[in-house]
Amino acid sequence: MFALDPQLAQDSFVIGDFTLCRLLLMNDSQYPWCILVPKRDGLREVYQLAATDRHLLVTESCLLAETMQHVLHADKINIAALGNVVPQLHLHHIARFTTDIAWPAPVWGKFPAQAYSPAQRTSRTQALCEALAHAGNFKPCQF
Amino acid sequence: MFALDPQLAQDSFVIGDFTLCRLLLMNDSQYPWCILVPKRDGLREVYQLAATDRHLLVTESCLLAETMQHVLHADKINIAALGNVVPQLHLHHIARFTTDIAWPAPVWGKFPAQAYSPAQRTSRTQALCEALAHAGNFKPCQF
Repeated sequence: MFALDPQLAQDSFVIGDFTLCRLLLMNDSQYPWCILVPKRDGLREVYQLAATDRHLLVTESCLLAETMQHVLHADKINIAALGNVVPQLHLHHIARFTTDIAWPAPVWGKFPAQAYSPAQRTSRTQALCEALAHAGNFKPCQF
Repeated sequence: MFALDPQLAQDSFVIGDFTLCRLLLMNDSQYPWCILVPKRDGLREVYQLAATDRHLLVTESCLLAETMQHVLHADKINIAALGNVVPQLHLHHIARFTTDIAWPAPVWGKFPAQAYSPAQRTSRTQALCEALAHAGNFKPCQF
């Protein structure tokens, strides 16, 4: 039975589900920052996924990255599977802008997270869900 | 005609080729740090790859990551497509240890690179190439 890592659950909001992955929005308003978590138990590395799941992961990752870049007019999408602190396999997808506070450095460890206001959170979540809803294999949460 | 980005060429050694990607070793002896560069021109984002290339990329990435973890007895593999500075699409694969100098932080921007000695470079490169040679779809450079 899949369960989200407690640290991920504390730091983010669930905004929907793809076929393989749960989609989270990190509660850091400094960057549009999504996380894909494959709904498989006990994995730490991408290579531990079965071949069919690996292909689903890259498909869902590309759909998310392309959507984020187009909806947000981002200059770059940063994608990473790190997991040094949180053991559950998860992939960061961060929309980066040449004007953001950490550019061009990676975001990790640069600035403490700034929580969204309720209005900001709703706005960001709705924009992403509406764009992803066209994908067919994405089911947004009901807010 | 595929050409490696000049900054990547300056910071790394080419150690072989997969079907899709060129395999580089970053010239930083602080971490076993490989880079996969898809041999396709003008791409910045993973989602810009054709579907068949996306699947090749995840296959080659998983083979490299699993090999690095097993050969090096790494505690974690960090994988990332950043590209904020170097525009050519490339994927970092870094073997991490709970004893390395940056753990548990990501490695980027933490410590200046420490170049390999010739003997260190040969040792690391040969160990990786020997392990990857069993894969079938990897051709090591001749050293």
